[in-house]
Amino acid sequence: MNFPKSVNVREVGPRDGLQNEKIVIETADKIAWINQLSDTGLSYIEITSFVHPKWIPQLKDAVEVATGIERKTGVTYAALIPNVKGLERACAAKIDEASIFMSASETHNQKNINKSIVETFPILKEVVEGAKQEKMTTRGYISTVFGCPYEGQVDIEEVIRVAERLFEMGIDELSLGDTIGVANPLQVQLVLDRLLHYFPKEKLAMHFHDTRGTALANVVAALEMGVTTFDGAVGGLGGCPYAPGASGNAATEDLIYMLNGMGIETGVLLRKLLKASKMIATKLEKSLPSHNLQAFLSSCEHV
Amino acid sequence: MNFPKSVNVREVGPRDGLQNEKIVIETADKIAWINQLSDTGLSYIEITSFVHPKWIPQLKDAVEVATGIERKTGVTYAALIPNVKGLERACAAKIDEASIFMSASETHNQKNINKSIVETFPILKEVVEGAKQEKMTTRGYISTVFGCPYEGQVDIEEVIRVAERLFEMGIDELSLGDTIGVANPLQVQLVLDRLLHYFPKEKLAMHFHDTRGTALANVVAALEMGVTTFDGAVGGLGGCPYAPGASGNAATEDLIYMLNGMGIETGVLLRKLLKASKMIATKLEKSLPSHNLQAFLSSCEHV
Repeated sequence: MNFPKSVNVREVGPRDGLQNEKIVIETADKIAWINQLSDTGLSYIEITSFVHPKWIPQLKDAVEVATGIERKTGVTYAALIPNVKGLERACAAKIDEASIFMSASETHNQKNINKSIVETFPILKEVVEGAKQEKMTTRGYISTVFGCPYEGQVDIEEVIRVAERLFEMGIDELSLGDTIGVANPLQVQLVLDRLLHYFPKEKLAMHFHDTRGTALANVVAALEMGVTTFDGAVGGLGGCPYAPGASGNAATEDLIYMLNGMGIETGVLLRKLLKASKMIATKLEKSLPSHNLQAFLSSCEHV
Repeated sequence: MNFPKSVNVREVGPRDGLQNEKIVIETADKIAWINQLSDTGLSYIEITSFVHPKWIPQLKDAVEVATGIERKTGVTYAALIPNVKGLERACAAKIDEASIFMSASETHNQKNINKSIVETFPILKEVVEGAKQEKMTTRGYISTVFGCPYEGQVDIEEVIRVAERLFEMGIDELSLGDTIGVANPLQVQLVLDRLLHYFPKEKLAMHFHDTRGTALANVVAALEMGVTTFDGAVGGLGGCPYAPGASGNAATEDLIYMLNGMGIETGVLLRKLLKASKMIATKLEKSLPSHNLQAFLSSCEHV
């Protein structure tokens, strides 16, 4: 196996992780939590979303959060921005990077964004162009790359078509999402093998969910293909709201534990990350799917 | 990546999975559960342990379970056997394969078996020789191969020394245990790279725990090294009794989900396995760490 020397980890917990949570975290707690995350060594945190508060009430304090946190040098503070209205608010709140998102599957895009794939492109283009004018970098997300809850298997050629359009707009990085956590390592390699004919590996990030326990196995497969950027949500936040115990995003601490153990540099201190994870679990009043958090909270480390 | 065409899965849930559970499963329920497991396509089930009932009251009905289940052709019914007294009971109960176990770390062996490593060998040798006379196959387990809760890092040369002694006794297969779930894929490859200088890969099995979320990632690493036998416990049973939410063994259904998805033949039907997993979760009155079970029980499959 051939592994890279270092990896970039993108923390998406404050946005992707919180957006489905029922318990609304107070703004001051979000700020304290993001400040903790900034202090772990993470170089990237997606802190909120500038969607209309009607859609995600949990993140309606986007401006307060973005202006309330301490900005640490070397950390990119990103936010999800669905349209130019959101971009205006994000600019005022001095967001570093604009994230845009869409789906590789028509039905999922329709249900998620309420628009067809073709209708979505011009809206995202406006955001990317506007962001560039404001000297913000931009990141694209494609969901359902490895499977769609409505359509099943997703054609890799559809993923390539959407990715091409996003890169043409000028995004700086593309995150490929296994939204429902169905991917396996062989599929990851087959998909990447195809995508890497078109796009440089330095521009690609993998966004795995651990719904079926395969998140880190998929990371290993992607590492071997030369990908060096991975999304994670501290605590494994981001599970389905209808499945209290089910796993969500790859837990950042599980990712960091594995990478650190493999001697792959991440710059992130696991202990500090675990404390930030514990803090948000306490605020959400529930146990989180992160394996390392559970091991950390138990006495099992010494049994 | 180079993956094998087929893999052998060893189900250890009824023994390794149940031994630490507080709620005692009724004998009739164990029998019904093992019969369900036999019907999934699994070719190997470790059904109980013939240790003194004083040590593991949960498994004191070993004889009743072994004689009560339906024996399916093509399925090996194994049991853990710590000494010749246990072997006598196991023979009477027509166990197919005798499992013996010890640790690669002196302190763990002492705490677990109450004997030093050197004192343990002759006891196991008696079991292996006795089992062979009874035409039983034998399987050795080495625990703490990737780390010890008392000693930390375990010297790979110690693992080799213990493995050599067990193979000299005549065991048919050796299962290498990551007892506390600390291994990472690079370590798995380094350990296997060394071990495969001494022992054929066909004789080795990997026994991973998912304590830190790395179980399936470690499976992928071992697959690439040519190992084709993996232990799992349905439901991810076998967590530490002091950590209610913490993960235990690699969940067999997570393993099967990943292998099936990769086109690696296992002979196991995931749906049937999930039903057996749900059944034991109900009897244990708790949610289990298996990711696929949680996805199966939730509506998230279609969200």
